[in-house]
Amino acid sequence: MPLADAEAIQNARARQGQLTKPPGSLGRLEDLACWMVGWQRREKPRADKVQVVVFAGNHGVAARGVSAFPAEVTVQMVANFEAGGAAINALCNAFGHDMRVIPLELERPTQDFTRGAALSEEECLAALNAGAAVVDGGGDIVVFGEMGIGNTTSASALAAAVFGGCGSDWAGAGTGHDATGIRLKAQVVNEALALHEAYLDTPFEILRRLGGREIAAIAGAIIAARAKRIPVVLDGFIACAAAGVLTPGNEDALAHCVAGHVSAEGGHKNMLAKLGLIPLLDLGMRLGEGSGAALAVQVLKAAATTHGQMATFAEAGVSDQEA
Amino acid sequence: MPLADAEAIQNARARQGQLTKPPGSLGRLEDLACWMVGWQRREKPRADKVQVVVFAGNHGVAARGVSAFPAEVTVQMVANFEAGGAAINALCNAFGHDMRVIPLELERPTQDFTRGAALSEEECLAALNAGAAVVDGGGDIVVFGEMGIGNTTSASALAAAVFGGCGSDWAGAGTGHDATGIRLKAQVVNEALALHEAYLDTPFEILRRLGGREIAAIAGAIIAARAKRIPVVLDGFIACAAAGVLTPGNEDALAHCVAGHVSAEGGHKNMLAKLGLIPLLDLGMRLGEGSGAALAVQVLKAAATTHGQMATFAEAGVSDQEA
Repeated sequence: MPLADAEAIQNARARQGQLTKPPGSLGRLEDLACWMVGWQRREKPRADKVQVVVFAGNHGVAARGVSAFPAEVTVQMVANFEAGGAAINALCNAFGHDMRVIPLELERPTQDFTRGAALSEEECLAALNAGAAVVDGGGDIVVFGEMGIGNTTSASALAAAVFGGCGSDWAGAGTGHDATGIRLKAQVVNEALALHEAYLDTPFEILRRLGGREIAAIAGAIIAARAKRIPVVLDGFIACAAAGVLTPGNEDALAHCVAGHVSAEGGHKNMLAKLGLIPLLDLGMRLGEGSGAALAVQVLKAAATTHGQMATFAEAGVSDQEA
Repeated sequence: MPLADAEAIQNARARQGQLTKPPGSLGRLEDLACWMVGWQRREKPRADKVQVVVFAGNHGVAARGVSAFPAEVTVQMVANFEAGGAAINALCNAFGHDMRVIPLELERPTQDFTRGAALSEEECLAALNAGAAVVDGGGDIVVFGEMGIGNTTSASALAAAVFGGCGSDWAGAGTGHDATGIRLKAQVVNEALALHEAYLDTPFEILRRLGGREIAAIAGAIIAARAKRIPVVLDGFIACAAAGVLTPGNEDALAHCVAGHVSAEGGHKNMLAKLGLIPLLDLGMRLGEGSGAALAVQVLKAAATTHGQMATFAEAGVSDQEA
């Protein structure tokens, strides 16, 4: 897998020091600009063409009552995405992002992972490939969102398998559970961990046993973006669980990713800490769909535009620091 | 001064509960949308036309060596704003904001406030009016930025006068000071407080004795925005010091303002806490010019667009929560 271009980053750092502002005064925007340069290998990073892809999948575990919403909402929300009525549509319209929705065999939910593997090997591979296929190289920046009733439970199980801990460490309110609902989710996760624990020794096995199609698709898309050197803005708890699955045995797997925001979903803050990612935004969002990341892209846009468009001290005839 | 429209806010809250998302899942975006509705008195809030105005002024206290940059940089940076080469230009271009720069008698710096009042009553009134005059009602949202070598020292003195504490509680690195420079700033602030302490009993006296033209202009513009019911996104340490001057004796003065970001300038976090404002962004920025606020406007844009464009459960045929 490609690495960031260290020489390009060094040149970008040098340019930052010449722009008409006190050194370092754009804070994280400066780091983000240099990081984008390292992946995109452009002298001036670009965040003009943003591709947002929302993957949808259905979860057998939803039958256990782990969501506050009925399972048919997944297909209803896909229709809402296609009609332009969801939050992610409104955000993509406002910011000029490209948006696609990819429903993944909604009529075939995963198996309830407290009874067996969520996906067969073939099914998991197909979902990984479906995700990778959307990364066509047409985006400067990519965002992968998800929709799937029951998928915070799946993400909690994945987090426990990847980062350690048990159900209660990772289960949260999801679409709107009270304490009783959260306890049920934690219990379901613990059942799944007990059933699969002997087999959770590779990212692929973790993903297919505890994941879901939309989650595997995000994992596949993140890998494909790396191969094409495209920076990824990660969304919330579920998208980061999908990303986290790529990290066992490969600490560098998410070097081309930035955390768009920290979700209000309980376990996300801890998940970001485990991944060593500092979120760009903290606005109490917990919707998924790629919504937090779609907004966070504006920070990358700010980073790219200041890096590329600002005048240098010499160009503008502005006196440099006295020191 | 007008108040937020409580009935409009109540209606906006009701609409948020009907949109196709779990209740509360857009976090602060939901609150911001309702807050905008309350001021704009529109059923669907708008953040399409954003006006950014950068005021510039020169400070006599700069002669004391309180900035890492020479005083002539103020006029050089105004030329840079006019030529489109500064960070705020790049941000406004990228986000489609309207941008103006208003230089305020740069050839006549304020008096060094360790020797007398920074501004006469007439000068301070003129600057307040110059600020108010830019709020022409043409913006859905307004941002007021500043440029003025020496103005973090002035802002530190204002903060001490308004919120209490001494120079070392508020003086920070500014454009790039080391510990020695920060100590000098703190000492200069303490000298000013000692000279003026008997006269700091009204916002106007605080402003004219310790402020500057660009700071007074921001204060005037914030008042004018309130009169016209236009939401304001506050920028960093200096803009918030200008805003803070309006609060003694009028706790509600900034109800139409939101804090765009928390600056890396040392005292800003404490200043926001004193003002009871929770920043939208925390990206380590400390440039001024309205740059943090110009970026934070994108959060308001996200709030307005989701509130206005999303389908309701009924419109989209999506099942509501089971509960």
